[in-house]
Order: sequence, then structure tokens, then C-alpha cells
Amino acid sequence: MTLEGLAINLATVRQQWDLPQAVDACLRHGITAIAPWRDQVDKIGLAQAARIVRDNKLRVTDLCRGGMFPAPDAAARQRQIDDNKRALDEAAALQAHCLVLVCGGLPEGSRDIAGARAMVRDGIAAVLPHARACKMPLAIEPLHPMYAADRACVNTLEQALDLCDALGDGVGVAIDTYHVWWDPKLFAQIARAGRRILAHHICDWLVPTRHMLLDRGMMGDGVIDFRPIRRAIEAAGFHGPQAVEILSESWWKEPGETVLTTAIARYKSLCALEH
Amino acid sequence: MTLEGLAINLATVRQQWDLPQAVDACLRHGITAIAPWRDQVDKIGLAQAARIVRDNKLRVTDLCRGGMFPAPDAAARQRQIDDNKRALDEAAALQAHCLVLVCGGLPEGSRDIAGARAMVRDGIAAVLPHARACKMPLAIEPLHPMYAADRACVNTLEQALDLCDALGDGVGVAIDTYHVWWDPKLFAQIARAGRRILAHHICDWLVPTRHMLLDRGMMGDGVIDFRPIRRAIEAAGFHGPQAVEILSESWWKEPGETVLTTAIARYKSLCALEH
Repeated sequence: MTLEGLAINLATVRQQWDLPQAVDACLRHGITAIAPWRDQVDKIGLAQAARIVRDNKLRVTDLCRGGMFPAPDAAARQRQIDDNKRALDEAAALQAHCLVLVCGGLPEGSRDIAGARAMVRDGIAAVLPHARACKMPLAIEPLHPMYAADRACVNTLEQALDLCDALGDGVGVAIDTYHVWWDPKLFAQIARAGRRILAHHICDWLVPTRHMLLDRGMMGDGVIDFRPIRRAIEAAGFHGPQAVEILSESWWKEPGETVLTTAIARYKSLCALEH
Repeated sequence: MTLEGLAINLATVRQQWDLPQAVDACLRHGITAIAPWRDQVDKIGLAQAARIVRDNKLRVTDLCRGGMFPAPDAAARQRQIDDNKRALDEAAALQAHCLVLVCGGLPEGSRDIAGARAMVRDGIAAVLPHARACKMPLAIEPLHPMYAADRACVNTLEQALDLCDALGDGVGVAIDTYHVWWDPKLFAQIARAGRRILAHHICDWLVPTRHMLLDRGMMGDGVIDFRPIRRAIEAAGFHGPQAVEILSESWWKEPGETVLTTAIARYKSLCALEH
């Protein structure tokens, strides 16, 4: 089996490797698709990161991340909009397939989640002309409802697609199994998403989960059944790589090589479809 | 303001008081509605618990809890069904308004959440004739999606109401702010629920949340805006008490009296509606 269908989100090995080290390791294993984070790009500079991508003919499935639109006042919201435009330029320089949006939660001190959701909609709308101009799609990532207050108030695929419907061309969704596996409407909404699916992240849900942010699981260590979700995503029209994105204090303590070989083995045995 | 609209779910003070002690404390403060848990009833015996309810003219908003239907084999599922029938008899003896169902998650070793959901539907259907016979409504409580694997695979009010639609008379819902506050469809589904709302629990969502089960918040300490939810629930036709249900290692370390006086103050300032 080739590893064309596998990408590594570099947050998965962020404690072990910087971007060039992670790319070298991926290439050694035959992985040619990555999803970097902006701080990892910043660390070596955008020009060098773009050169590494180009020289190695890497596929950048997505750049993580834009978003974080809600803020207590208009000036702070404008700063976020400006930062999202810079993120779009970076994604374009890296020839990424899309810019992932983690939309943001409640502004400090607020209890108005409907208001925060309106700020997200308005923020994306403000960024969208720039996204269209640089032909870089925005991928709204619905985050698990346990992050509604502090990370993203877009919490279901249905809600993300309603946003897409309202905003028009240039906006789609990123589907991360960790965030959506529980949703009783998941398969119906994947079918509804169709060609608006821009990224597919894989990560397992551990039982018990000991930390809300940093106890995500390697595929196979939790309760998610990956292949039916992938089948639905391909049936909807998305055939890009599955990007392993695991934020985990435990895996960050392992050698990067161990993380990578485990991810490859689990991808093959649990996630990849036969074609 | 009277405290007619306030109930105390006795899990909130389970480390401090047994059922008789909790009832005494509630009555001292003018609270006449409670929601006991089955183990708290068991500890003093159903007959004595029923006597305490009767002698003090207490209102039992709900008995916690039935449910936990999914299991790896038919025999284990039947044991759960039998246990739910006993829970219904106990609820009837206590003249509870309903029996709350925490429906259960994935059976041990399973990754089939659709299968677990079918077991929940079939389990409730099996218990329903007994519920109708003893005129004790079953209140499906949608639990936060972070409990989908290990506690309840019914995770949104919409899903719970779809179940009610499928099952017919004798089944309704329990709405706990902690579990549903994040849901973008919350207000639409409360309106849809109408007279099927059987219980209203209040509890706040803390930021950060340090433990998935036992770090729930006192009203006012988190991000939930309680009054709009209560207004919607009353508009839908439910006027029973708001039951404070807070599972919290921190509050369990406080004197019961402190928990009670704080809950009363917060109920008055943040939850009760003017009539």
C-alpha cells in the first residue's frame, strides 16, 4: 500500500521535531503530504518553508490555522480579520489546499454564544473576499462541543454547513473524526457537504479522556470506527489525504520515529480504504 | 421570592448529607422539591424515603436514574431492562414526576455507536409498557457529546426528541443546561419539545473544565446564560422547578449549608424568572 492517502499534521510531532526535521522523517517513510501550523512555519520563515514544500514536491493538505474571530470590541475583531488575511497569504505561499479555521469561542467575560456565532459569521465574511482573491478556500472546522466556550463555537458539521450556505463560494469544511464522531447526524451531513469537504483529519477518542485538549488518541486506541467515516467522505467527493492530527501529552513524550511508524501502521490497518 | 421554583438534586450534596439530612436542610431553607438518586433512596430504604416525601409534602421532580441500556449480550441487556422496571416502581412509590434516563454509551469493546443507539431505542421500548402501566413518564436526558462513549449516546435534544417521536406516549425529555447549552439548535428544539419537557436541571459550564465528570459549576461561575433557556422552557409549557444538579469535587468539599445557600442565592439572581 502506498502512503499517498496519508498526511501528517505536524502538531502531532511538535514537541519532537521542527518543520524541516518532520519533513525529513516523513519523506524517509514515503509520506509526501503534511499539514503545518503557522508557528512552525514562522520559526523557520515562510520563504524557507515554501522552498522545502517546493523542493520536495510536498502536498500541503491544510495550513493550521486561522479563525478566532470573536473578541470583545471592534478593534480586536479587526485585528483577527487582518491576521486571517495574513494566514491566507501564508497558505497561498505554501500552496496549501485550504486554510483551516478554528473559529473561536466566547469573548472574555461573555455568556452570549449566539453573539459569538454572529461574530464568527461576520469575521469569515470579512475575510472571504481576500480568500477568493488568492484562491485559497477557508475550511471551517467544527470543534467538539466541549470546546464551545473557549475554542470554537462552531460545534457540528450541520452548523458549519449552514454557515457555508450563508457565506457562499470560497468556504468549505474540515472534518476531524475526533470532533464529529459522536454526532448522530454525521453521515447525513457528510453527504450534504459534498465537494465542500476540504480536509479530513483523523484522531481517536480515548475512554477515559483525561484532559480536554491534550489527551487525544492514536487511531485504534479509542472508540472511533474510521473506515465508515472515510467511505462516506469519499462518497461525498473528497479524495485528499487523511491527516493524522493528535494533540497528546503522551505521544509528545515518545520519539517522533515511534509516533510516525505507529501512525503509519494504524492508518494502514484501520483507516485506509481498499481501492 | 418564594423558592417554589427551585429543587435540589441530592447528588449536589451527596458527600455531605444523606437523604433525610438533605431534606431537613432543604426544608429549613424553604425548599420543598428534591430529586434523589436511587442509591440515596436505597440507603434508607424505599419505604422510609416515601414516608419522608409524604410526611413533608415534598415534590419529587425526578428520580435519578434509569437507563444504561447498551450491553454486549442479550442477557445483560435484559438485566438492564429489568432494573429500569424496578426504577419505575421506585419512582412511583416516591410520587416522582418522572424517571430520568441516562441512556448508556458503547458496550465494552464496541465501536458501533449506531448499534448502541439502537439498543437504547429497543431498551426504552421494552420498558415503556411498564412505564405506561404505572403512569410514570420516562425522561430521556441528552448528555453532553463528551459522554457519548461511556455514559450516554443520546447527545442532543433533537436526537432525544426523534426518539420520543419514534416511541410514542410515556416518553419525554430532561433538559440539563450543562449538557445542552452549546447546541446551536437548542431553542428550536426546546420549542419542538413542548409538553414533552419533564424536567429542567441547572448547572454551569466552567472554563476551564478540569475533569470531564466532576468539575461542573455552580450557576454564575461559568458561561451559561440561564434565564433565556428558562424562558424558552416555560414558553414550551414546562413550569416545574429548576433542579440544581452539580457534580463537583470542589463543591463536595464545602459544607452542605454553604452549597445550599449559594445555590439559593444564584438561583434567585441568575435563574428565576419574574412572574
